[in-house]
Amino acid sequence: MSARLEQQFAFLLEAEKLKSVYRATPIADNSRRENSAEHSWTLALYALVLADQAGPGVDAMRAIKMLLIHDLVEIDVGDVPIHSGNGQAHGAAEIQAAEAAAAERIFSLLPNDLSDDLKAAWHEFEAAQSPTARFAKSLDRVQPVMLNLEGGGGSWLEYDVTWDQLEGRVGVKIRDGLPGLWDWVRARIHPWFAARGR
Amino acid sequence: MSARLEQQFAFLLEAEKLKSVYRATPIADNSRRENSAEHSWTLALYALVLADQAGPGVDAMRAIKMLLIHDLVEIDVGDVPIHSGNGQAHGAAEIQAAEAAAAERIFSLLPNDLSDDLKAAWHEFEAAQSPTARFAKSLDRVQPVMLNLEGGGGSWLEYDVTWDQLEGRVGVKIRDGLPGLWDWVRARIHPWFAARGR
Repeated sequence: MSARLEQQFAFLLEAEKLKSVYRATPIADNSRRENSAEHSWTLALYALVLADQAGPGVDAMRAIKMLLIHDLVEIDVGDVPIHSGNGQAHGAAEIQAAEAAAAERIFSLLPNDLSDDLKAAWHEFEAAQSPTARFAKSLDRVQPVMLNLEGGGGSWLEYDVTWDQLEGRVGVKIRDGLPGLWDWVRARIHPWFAARGR
Repeated sequence: MSARLEQQFAFLLEAEKLKSVYRATPIADNSRRENSAEHSWTLALYALVLADQAGPGVDAMRAIKMLLIHDLVEIDVGDVPIHSGNGQAHGAAEIQAAEAAAAERIFSLLPNDLSDDLKAAWHEFEAAQSPTARFAKSLDRVQPVMLNLEGGGGSWLEYDVTWDQLEGRVGVKIRDGLPGLWDWVRARIHPWFAARGR
């Protein structure tokens, strides 16, 4: 058991580094940027609370597992803001390869059974094919939108985002996993853009 | 559905405030204090990774649910460091009453079914009677210990903690839910105290 615990804690201590990876989105009171660890907590809470909004075939507890680990690769690769120049290459081959290498390194700190289990969850999330992964991906897009709205613009101001860009980069992906939720969110955020002629 | 979503998002936006509640424990690189949102994420990850260390009757996914929500009451009450003067009154009647009132206020933002569900999980965690709640409580004690060790002392230095105090305030509670894990952790942290004559 002792060798197993050494591996489990090597991973858990490595994961602590995610608290120093900062995102483009400010927290709700606009006092500082959000980090990827607290962002991951929020998303797990979103999955817990919005599970009833999911379509058929979604396992909300598996979505929580995916969301708890989905950003650990940023320990090596950093966060790539969706509205930045690099963000528009989000999913580009070189970023995907770097993230896959990071997943391999970080999850391999664990005993084999846990490593295989979390790698499978991470790759399922990234592939965004299963209903559960698409639900989880949609939540990952919704929460920064709600934070930007709450904080008075956030990364939309920083990257000079227009409504068409938001619909194209974010809206279509939220709608893919949570169509009813996107209608509701859209009605709340569109006025912010309309009022600014964006 | 729209009224329901209003309530779900009222709760989720309220929860964002936990990112501004700071704890006594510094993060692993000692650069700043940990906040209660990222702490909650770490604990959910602990439950995911250390589930095999739990005894019979523990539902690890339910433990994750408890750990995601257990500190939300700190939005109203703040964090009470376990090694502070107030921390030694941890569980004192007035703190318990304030936390219960906070749970009532915060979870009641949700639709009734979700509110009842999360209140039940929060009270089960606080009561620390079920195997799942005792597992979750033990993880909540282990993680700050590992962070303090990693960061070179952390809140043990700030509050001038002795080994006997640590065993009495923390060790007995970790052992209660995870006896094998406490033996392993104890062997790693006792030398830190012994080397300093504490």
